[in-house]
Amino acid sequence: LKTSIKYNFKYARKLIRASNLAHFIHNQASSRFLGIQPTGVPHLGNYLGALENWVALQNQYPSVLYSIVDLHSITQPQDPDKLRNNILDMAASLLACGINPEKAILFQQSQVSEHAEFCWILGCLTSMPRLRHLPQWKMKSKQKNEGSVGLYIYPVLQAADILLYKSTHVPVGEDQVQHLELAQDLARIFNLHYGELFPEPHALLSSTRKVKSLRDPSSKMSKSDSQPMATISITDSPDDIALKIRRAVTDFTSEVTFDPQARPGVSNLVTIHAAVARLSVEEAVSAAKGLDTGAYKGLVSEAVIQRLAPIREEIQRLKADPAHLEALLALGSRRARELAAPMLDEVRHRVGFS
Amino acid sequence: LKTSIKYNFKYARKLIRASNLAHFIHNQASSRFLGIQPTGVPHLGNYLGALENWVALQNQYPSVLYSIVDLHSITQPQDPDKLRNNILDMAASLLACGINPEKAILFQQSQVSEHAEFCWILGCLTSMPRLRHLPQWKMKSKQKNEGSVGLYIYPVLQAADILLYKSTHVPVGEDQVQHLELAQDLARIFNLHYGELFPEPHALLSSTRKVKSLRDPSSKMSKSDSQPMATISITDSPDDIALKIRRAVTDFTSEVTFDPQARPGVSNLVTIHAAVARLSVEEAVSAAKGLDTGAYKGLVSEAVIQRLAPIREEIQRLKADPAHLEALLALGSRRARELAAPMLDEVRHRVGFS
Repeated sequence: LKTSIKYNFKYARKLIRASNLAHFIHNQASSRFLGIQPTGVPHLGNYLGALENWVALQNQYPSVLYSIVDLHSITQPQDPDKLRNNILDMAASLLACGINPEKAILFQQSQVSEHAEFCWILGCLTSMPRLRHLPQWKMKSKQKNEGSVGLYIYPVLQAADILLYKSTHVPVGEDQVQHLELAQDLARIFNLHYGELFPEPHALLSSTRKVKSLRDPSSKMSKSDSQPMATISITDSPDDIALKIRRAVTDFTSEVTFDPQARPGVSNLVTIHAAVARLSVEEAVSAAKGLDTGAYKGLVSEAVIQRLAPIREEIQRLKADPAHLEALLALGSRRARELAAPMLDEVRHRVGFS
Repeated sequence: LKTSIKYNFKYARKLIRASNLAHFIHNQASSRFLGIQPTGVPHLGNYLGALENWVALQNQYPSVLYSIVDLHSITQPQDPDKLRNNILDMAASLLACGINPEKAILFQQSQVSEHAEFCWILGCLTSMPRLRHLPQWKMKSKQKNEGSVGLYIYPVLQAADILLYKSTHVPVGEDQVQHLELAQDLARIFNLHYGELFPEPHALLSSTRKVKSLRDPSSKMSKSDSQPMATISITDSPDDIALKIRRAVTDFTSEVTFDPQARPGVSNLVTIHAAVARLSVEEAVSAAKGLDTGAYKGLVSEAVIQRLAPIREEIQRLKADPAHLEALLALGSRRARELAAPMLDEVRHRVGFS
């Protein structure tokens, strides 16, 4: 936090000179920014691995922004109807998982024009080769053997997302560390060219649980898994959850132990059980004492069903009234714009547009 | 014009189905878009070579948009104070040269957020290699031996500028023909992916006069000429104009003839004289009958001074009241946004954002 305080202090003096103290106070609070792709309803792996931690941030910090990053999503081909639906599904899911729109800001990226505008400005400060080796481009352009301009400049838009709210901390996965480094570089480059304005954003690393596929515990649980029994959606019915866990791949030992290397299938069930029942791994293993893996699966099912039931009901409730959901998103986008607009005004002025 | 009528017809049926006829009528008129870099006060070569023709467009067509493209200008390093001043100088110059803000729309690109937003969307439809050989990148990145992301995607922003107003005709210089082809391609690609929406814009080629340097008539008159006597600014004083023309390089023949190959210096004076006095080249040569080049220079000076005097006065008047000038630009930007906003709403909807 030291860095951001130092920057803000310098910035404060400038703004006090400019008799614009209100603006400074408004921008002073350090904020957390999270960008979430609108991939539709999350699965249990998303929920336990990341979403649960993200939701907790709103209780730990005063200013947390959750953005459904639809501008990022179109860097890969999208079906418009599906995208529209996925945005609402993701919004409903985030709210049902506990994001409180009165505490944090939940908004749709494309509804805040400042993101794309700032992206253009930052793109003029980014050299072409700087992006060539970043993970987003290297992985996805190779997969398809081509890539769009949008995919190439994806990390510049991420930097715009982050800096627009003077974010000091950004939860990132390992594959996003290099993208955050670009945001840090661009903060420095902007400050150097146009005077101190942006704190350098820091990575917020949180221990994330890795939930595995129920059919192949050597790979991650994934929405795009070709085996429907491999993945539990957070909106699955109790019957579907029970069936998927009953069919989960384990091994030929009936006792329940936790040993992810030697016994990945059973250990994955322990991980899930511990997470949904809010137990430690040891407590989950003790709870399984005397049960064979078959009976343990019943216990895990019950715990998953119990944990997901209120989320599933809330998603159904929210999805039943799309107008209300859209209004909630529009309200969040308005609040995000209230933060982004004065920031971009300041950027515009420093660049020489006004 | 056929193309645009066909497109609009198809689009009309869609919109009538959507009971949104007002929107269609609003977008039906074919429009002309001109992007002008904020390079400050133009010189005589800019004025006679392009500006004069551009201003005439507002009297020939119902919907003409003149945009001071400051987002484009930052693809090259800019000093913010100088850029700010150049934007106002260019606005004042365009108005003084005859752009009528009640007839046409004069606006500042960065004040209409839809340009950058649409640029992002079009960037997701542009493949990376498509831009590699376009003139803007090839020339300017080579000059500096590097280039920014902004410079690389410059032509995508141009396409956004053009298509956002459903422009059917765009005045382009020879070096911009390939950029217009990208805009045509992107109109086609968008229409193919998301349904007919954009007419393919056509090049509006106009005969442009080539005014040469007064010190070296083998090269074009240029703002960045290292010899101050080579270039006449449209705000030069009568004394400066007279001095520069008196010192203009000619040759050792005293008679005035028009022969750009053999006598580039004298012929350049004839070109300037004809243009400012609204004469044909033949009429200008007749007017010089009996005069040696020295005396003819006096005649040319007088004609240039007379033509530029009201422009110079109007620029001074406009620059004396920057608040009024800014208000004029803000008004134009509001009018541009009234056209751009419903268009981008339609784009957003088709892409799946709303």
